[in-house]
Amino acid sequence: MIYLDNAATTFPKPDCVYEAMDKMNREGAVNAGRGSYKAAREASKLIEETKNLLRKLVHADISASVVFGPSVTIAMNQIVNGLNLRNNAVVYVSPYEHNAVARTVHELSKKKNLIIKEIPLKSNLEIDLEKMKYEFIKDKPEALFCTHVSNVTGYILPIKEIFEESKKYGCINVLDSAQSMGLIEIRADLLKVDLIAFAGHKTLYGPFGIGGFINVSGISLEVFICGGTGSDSLNLEMPDGNETRYETASSNIVAIAGLNAALKDLDQKKCLKHENKLTDYLIKQLLTIKEVHMYLPENMEKHVGIVSLNVKGFSAEDIGLILDEDFDIAVRTGYHCAPFIHKFLKDSDSLGTIRIGLGQFSLEQDINELVYAIKDILGGN
Amino acid sequence: MIYLDNAATTFPKPDCVYEAMDKMNREGAVNAGRGSYKAAREASKLIEETKNLLRKLVHADISASVVFGPSVTIAMNQIVNGLNLRNNAVVYVSPYEHNAVARTVHELSKKKNLIIKEIPLKSNLEIDLEKMKYEFIKDKPEALFCTHVSNVTGYILPIKEIFEESKKYGCINVLDSAQSMGLIEIRADLLKVDLIAFAGHKTLYGPFGIGGFINVSGISLEVFICGGTGSDSLNLEMPDGNETRYETASSNIVAIAGLNAALKDLDQKKCLKHENKLTDYLIKQLLTIKEVHMYLPENMEKHVGIVSLNVKGFSAEDIGLILDEDFDIAVRTGYHCAPFIHKFLKDSDSLGTIRIGLGQFSLEQDINELVYAIKDILGGN
Repeated sequence: MIYLDNAATTFPKPDCVYEAMDKMNREGAVNAGRGSYKAAREASKLIEETKNLLRKLVHADISASVVFGPSVTIAMNQIVNGLNLRNNAVVYVSPYEHNAVARTVHELSKKKNLIIKEIPLKSNLEIDLEKMKYEFIKDKPEALFCTHVSNVTGYILPIKEIFEESKKYGCINVLDSAQSMGLIEIRADLLKVDLIAFAGHKTLYGPFGIGGFINVSGISLEVFICGGTGSDSLNLEMPDGNETRYETASSNIVAIAGLNAALKDLDQKKCLKHENKLTDYLIKQLLTIKEVHMYLPENMEKHVGIVSLNVKGFSAEDIGLILDEDFDIAVRTGYHCAPFIHKFLKDSDSLGTIRIGLGQFSLEQDINELVYAIKDILGGN
Repeated sequence: MIYLDNAATTFPKPDCVYEAMDKMNREGAVNAGRGSYKAAREASKLIEETKNLLRKLVHADISASVVFGPSVTIAMNQIVNGLNLRNNAVVYVSPYEHNAVARTVHELSKKKNLIIKEIPLKSNLEIDLEKMKYEFIKDKPEALFCTHVSNVTGYILPIKEIFEESKKYGCINVLDSAQSMGLIEIRADLLKVDLIAFAGHKTLYGPFGIGGFINVSGISLEVFICGGTGSDSLNLEMPDGNETRYETASSNIVAIAGLNAALKDLDQKKCLKHENKLTDYLIKQLLTIKEVHMYLPENMEKHVGIVSLNVKGFSAEDIGLILDEDFDIAVRTGYHCAPFIHKFLKDSDSLGTIRIGLGQFSLEQDINELVYAIKDILGGN
């Protein structure tokens, strides 16, 4: 299989991730717990170490709480529902948001009658910062959700500028780093960001089953998910504690061991350089096929690792099927769980896009095979 | 390490579980998805197969939806918050409930002013069915949460009788099978149960990261957690579908592969026989130490795999620490995330109990070492 679906989940992972998981499975997969017994304490230590690696990676203060959970989706549900937004609050979302944000905010708005506004986009598919400023003046932002990198087009959003502007209104800024953490440097110390949600299994090269959020500013969050915490068990309230309070259920120490190994192995600069190079190569190759239409931001410096495209005369799904059946090339087709952006891409005739997701293990050869396959489908070989 | 904390998580797992996870990690850990490409379809097939194994295990109809998620805790949050209970609804919980139920119901009651009632207990620590019937007449049950096996004492609750009685009032019955599924036969076809929540990593011998619930009666649940489902992406509502609607975020196919292997390996009768035999042996041995007080149901047939105890003159935690430090024996001490039962156990002087959790890989020799250690601590060796 030529795997070009790294935006869904990176595959493969570095070998050390598999080794760490298998070792933990066989030797230490007990229930992490404070002071219970050696193996449980070892598990707790590994969790703390992994949190520190994440803090370091994003330049967060040692005091920033890192909340572990099973996925970035659960993290977003905890954040959206935990922010204690007032009725009729003005909530901005970027047009590139994933359904982990879009549907969750939409669901909450049924109860709180939120005013949900999309940050405006220019016709070149980049955020319109000037228009955004104007919108903020009209409807002052109270909470803002912004993905760092679009999972559909690979566009890198100008989060620094967006967050700085919204913060002028005291807005709570939430970054979805599912497609960026580990690939693009995140400077929590320089960004006006309150919360950063992350996925372990994408650009961080960890496994499924571990995600969470970093509370950069120490903003208070109401409890959304309840359960056992292994502490203060007689108390029906979730216990105090910036992390414990939001970390219910048994810690997935096997997944955390995988993430730990991934973080130790991670070379962010090298990954970015590799993906940039391959992305350039992919685009150049695809530009030679006149039937291919790519959905790219104007400025290539604002782009990384993901290319969405369509092939004239075919639906996205059909191309995906042929790539799979005849060429054993794995891509994702459709709307990619991003509900807002497609009205700007105007891809409804193709029922979405064909998405190429590159990763640190992608090769030029993979791209050559993809380009060959598309040409072949078009009868050009 | 002599591992006697199987009630927290079973350890080790059968070797086939580790092998299946490592193989899936290395060969197929992509994002499951309908029709995208072969590996994604293979992942989807494995998910379906695993759901069928679970249906078969609990004698559920093929039409019963099996919802996968990261943990039984998340499942309980989805159930409690999804049931659409009315304000002031009467909700019964057994006194043996875990905080995954207790705290979640408590949190919801802040919004809905629920009337939360404990099912009555007799002085022998068994459910008082007669008194329960009387309570039901006074305050008619609308929803009832009952664990199958107490994670503190190993008591097997009379779920058949409880659910039959509450169902006379049209009550919604929810079973927490975290400590029983895979160990004690569950007859979904014979029980008056609506929903069964399960944990992959306990008596099922699967890994962390997979749990969920079986909707036996097809009761409708509101959405509690939102996010991407890989389907109907432009729709801001969670899509219809008895399973998809509640299964957001990327499927943890590695954990599911582990659970799949565990289910194929599982010999429920053999596990039960082994644990019963060892439990008997453990109790007999501990009865020879007069300073040991065990918290047991009167009737040993209503008991399996878990023994809670205290040692006269010591706090539970102190015994746990010495067992760990001097004998490398891993037990759990304290309140075990079960907030209600301790008032009946009257264990506050010891700050909870010492819990011995047996598993299919526990040996008589482990028990001998534990008994030796306790005697040694008491100066009896």
